[in-house]
Order: sequence, then C-alpha cells, then structure tokens
Amino acid sequence: MKLYGYWRSSSSWRVRIALNLKGVEYEYVPVHLVRDGGEQHHPEYVAKNALHQVPTLEHDGVVLTQSMAMVEWLDEIAPEPRLFPGDAQDRARIRELCEISNSAIQPMHNLSVLLAVEALGAVRAEWARPHIERGLAAMEERVSVPFAAGADLSAADVFIVPQLGAARRFGVDVERFVKLIRIESNCKTLPAFERAHPDQQPDAQQGA
Amino acid sequence: MKLYGYWRSSSSWRVRIALNLKGVEYEYVPVHLVRDGGEQHHPEYVAKNALHQVPTLEHDGVVLTQSMAMVEWLDEIAPEPRLFPGDAQDRARIRELCEISNSAIQPMHNLSVLLAVEALGAVRAEWARPHIERGLAAMEERVSVPFAAGADLSAADVFIVPQLGAARRFGVDVERFVKLIRIESNCKTLPAFERAHPDQQPDAQQGA
Repeated sequence: MKLYGYWRSSSSWRVRIALNLKGVEYEYVPVHLVRDGGEQHHPEYVAKNALHQVPTLEHDGVVLTQSMAMVEWLDEIAPEPRLFPGDAQDRARIRELCEISNSAIQPMHNLSVLLAVEALGAVRAEWARPHIERGLAAMEERVSVPFAAGADLSAADVFIVPQLGAARRFGVDVERFVKLIRIESNCKTLPAFERAHPDQQPDAQQGA
Repeated sequence: MKLYGYWRSSSSWRVRIALNLKGVEYEYVPVHLVRDGGEQHHPEYVAKNALHQVPTLEHDGVVLTQSMAMVEWLDEIAPEPRLFPGDAQDRARIRELCEISNSAIQPMHNLSVLLAVEALGAVRAEWARPHIERGLAAMEERVSVPFAAGADLSAADVFIVPQLGAARRFGVDVERFVKLIRIESNCKTLPAFERAHPDQQPDAQQGA
C-alpha cells in the first residue's frame, strides 16, 4: 500500500490517521505541492490523480483518489476498529460530520482554490477563514464528547483533528469550539494520531 | 420524510433521485435560495442547517445535512436497489466518483462561493468553468458505460446527472465527455431520474 501525500495537506493527514488506526502498513510517498512548480502537476502523478491533488492511495495496482472514499474502503477491508460504528442513524451522523469537513470546509482552503482567489486579489487566510469558521460552528453544534460520535472513536474524529490543524494555519480562533477542542485533545495522544501528525512526516519542513 | 431543497441545486437533485430510486415517499419543501434575501438564511432554516445550505432531510425528528451522508443513509435503510453495488473495490470506485462531484466540483459552484468570488470581481461562470471541466475530465477517465460503475446503476450515476446539469448552466461544453453523456442518456429516461429533474419540481422557474 502506497500513500501519496503531503505532510501539511489535511486530506492526506486524514488518510494517515485511518491507515494507522487500522494497523495497515503503508509506504508514504511525499508529493511536494510547492517545490518545482508543484509535484502534483507532474505527468507521472497526474496519471494517477487527474485532479492534481493529494492524497492518492495505491494498492495492488489499483489507484484510488478522494480521502472519504479511502476511509470508507479501509473500513471495509479492515473492519476493526470500526470507523462508522453504531446503527444507520449513527453512521449518517458520522458521515455528515466528515462531509462538513470534506465538502464544505476543506475545498475552500485547497491549494488550487487559494491560488485562484489570490489571482483575484484576495488574501488567502481572509478568504478561507469565514468558510472554516462557519463549517466548524456547524460541526460544534453536532458533535458529542469525548469523541465526535460519543463514546467511540469514529471517522468523524479522523476528519476533525486535521481540520482544526488547518484552521489554525489560517488564523481561526479555534478555542471557542469547545467540544471540537476536547475531541482533538482526546485524540492527539493516541499513537495512530501521533504518528499521522504533519510534523512526524518525512517531508515535514520545520518552521514552514 | 421531508426534503428541504431548491429545484436547481445539484445537491438537492441528487437526493431526489436517490429517494425516488429507493421508492421512499417524501414531502418536498422548497427553500428559495435567492428570493427574500435567501430563505436558507432564515433563522428557522438555519436551526436545521447551520451551513445555510440545501438540502436538508428530516425524518422522525432527525435532521440530516450533507447529500452524500443522505445517499449512504438511504442505502442502509432501504437496501434495494443497491446504490453501492459490487465488492469493496467497486464501492470505493463509486464513492470516489461521487466525491469528485461532491467535494471537488460542486463546492466550487455553490451559491455562497459564487457570491464570494463575485465580490472579488470574478464572473461566476468564468470562475466555475475550469473547476467543473477538470473534475468532469477526472470522472470521464474513471467511468464505465452503460452506467458509471458498469452494468448496474449506482450512486455515481446519481451524482453525475445533476453534475452535468450544473455544468451546462455554467457554459461547459459537456459533449466532449462522451462516456458521461452516455451515462446521462441512459439514466434520464428512468422514472426516478425524470421525476427528480429540476424542471419537474414545484419551485421550478421556467426560463430562469
């Protein structure tokens, strides 16, 4: 199993956490999003990921993009611990939380979008911040503690921790999201989360 | 079951298709995204959907947002016809296709984003078109025919048809995506798709 990712990409971070939680061994292949014009634009990478984005997961010749699809797939091939525990309604709530990060927040601070709004004269963080704040507020309203889905860890936590990490980079005051911060605090000392942290990746750039 | 939606919203359209495919009866509650300052911003709606977005699904007092979570939930509570058929790898591919629409394309032409880029001086369609084109190209590369996942209809088709509808509104030349167009053509005469079409909704505005 190969994961093509970037240390600071929140979508790559999610998949690292999920792989670690499932105990799936993988090779991490850094794709530098800035250096050399952006390695995500190199033809050999675009052949794997036509959206020029990270992450990409490769396994037995099968190439998969989209972090949510990867997390669902990992939960099917390695069922324990379950990332979508509970009944149908519980799973719906977990997926809803994942999607608030995946489709409502993260796309707004995706590198390609930041470059596009910068070309329109916007300041990256000022563009991203209101979208992130509104999304986190929607999540805060819906989460339980100690984990987002309640007593058990779930895919929602896998998305929340990187989302808070990204929020801080854009200058969002995250401390007001009291439940999200508690969830993060409960997750971050778990080995699967510790090893997935951007600073622990081989392509991490200190002080960047 | 109540679906709060807007006739032309591609995310609402997806959920209408899925509800129809599953044969689930529902009440359609129009939320007009433009009239009266946008009904999605009215406090009684924001209490259901903190992101000020459509669709929202309400059932037995449970309020669910995020169209992908709704489609997955419908597939759990009403298993036939299966929207994620096949094995784990097939389902991963279906979810990947859904997510290219859900998280890579649609967020770029969401009304709130269009208003935000317009405020930066961009023209809506010019902003949206390259994102839509790149996303559709990624989907075209991955889909089968007659349906996106092959012989069987799946959630991927449920996302593709509304995505092509939105693409046309933004002036994308969709005819070059030959497989996507064939899929759309195979879907659009199915009753579940026909009844879900924007023009068939009570809030449709002809010529809008």
